[in-house]
Amino acid sequence: MDAMVRWEPGARERLQAAALERFAEQGYDGTTVAEIAATAGLTERTFFRYFADKREVLFFGQDEFERTFVASVDAADEGHPIAIVATALDSAAAFFPDERRPWSRARQAVIDAEPSLQERELLKLSSLAAAMTRALQRRGIDTTAAALAAESGVAVFRVAFAGWIAEREERSLAELQRAVFSELRSLVNTI
Amino acid sequence: MDAMVRWEPGARERLQAAALERFAEQGYDGTTVAEIAATAGLTERTFFRYFADKREVLFFGQDEFERTFVASVDAADEGHPIAIVATALDSAAAFFPDERRPWSRARQAVIDAEPSLQERELLKLSSLAAAMTRALQRRGIDTTAAALAAESGVAVFRVAFAGWIAEREERSLAELQRAVFSELRSLVNTI
Repeated sequence: MDAMVRWEPGARERLQAAALERFAEQGYDGTTVAEIAATAGLTERTFFRYFADKREVLFFGQDEFERTFVASVDAADEGHPIAIVATALDSAAAFFPDERRPWSRARQAVIDAEPSLQERELLKLSSLAAAMTRALQRRGIDTTAAALAAESGVAVFRVAFAGWIAEREERSLAELQRAVFSELRSLVNTI
Repeated sequence: MDAMVRWEPGARERLQAAALERFAEQGYDGTTVAEIAATAGLTERTFFRYFADKREVLFFGQDEFERTFVASVDAADEGHPIAIVATALDSAAAFFPDERRPWSRARQAVIDAEPSLQERELLKLSSLAAAMTRALQRRGIDTTAAALAAESGVAVFRVAFAGWIAEREERSLAELQRAVFSELRSLVNTI
């Protein structure tokens, strides 16, 4: 390993915070990797040790998030598909502890301002639904039930996550997901 | 209007069929507008009278589809959000009569082969969910219930539509949507 590229404790988090600061001030398109690195007090080479490109700063961790979901579906006890998905949502909520909420709020503002980032976000969520569908199918659940349980799980996550980052919301993501799930249950029971 | 660009009966449908034929044979990226027009026996100028670009051939009608959904939510009788969404799904199914099924199957194969088209498709569905959420909110339904009902509706549409274009499926989209809705109801009642 090159001696110039040494391990910096907390470098990833510093780069992520610096990127959000720059994006908020001068826009996503108007920000360079060099500026992000400088804001974090690090070199561009260090940046590229952690992230493949500028966009990756905003999406880092999502593959692991998906793997957690899928591993939780794989490991769940025997049960109905939607109960398995609810368990997976509970596990995955650990990815978003309350101390991450301000970061997630700032990140969402950047994403909402940039259509190409929205497309990327949608693709990640669609990939999550597809991966959960396959994991449920591996458990012998038929295609329609698997797809529906997975899509409902992602819908619950999306709605709960939007609530979690809303102004003044203080409940945890896990708590919101359970509330949204129970709202889904009463909603679909009205017809 | 330029006399060269005259009305051609059925031109839009001919161009769409020609595009799918070309895309299937030589890929989406490898097909030019000139080739599509030639296959349809029409000029490139005629093509651009109907479609802004090559991609639009695959997405034409989706804005109208969204408007139909929203108009149906606006016009629905007093009722629970999910019942309103179910009614809107019934109306929107008229966009996909059974004679359109072979076309939708061929179209999906093109989309599935091309990530940029998948992103576009996801963005359209996300825009549909957002438009339905706003329409439900205009009826005085609170944000969470509106978002959840809209997301569930789109999930039901996606799952039912995937079933509708599956090999050997013969049920109508409206019928599949109702079956998927009832499966959603029994799924979420198991926990």
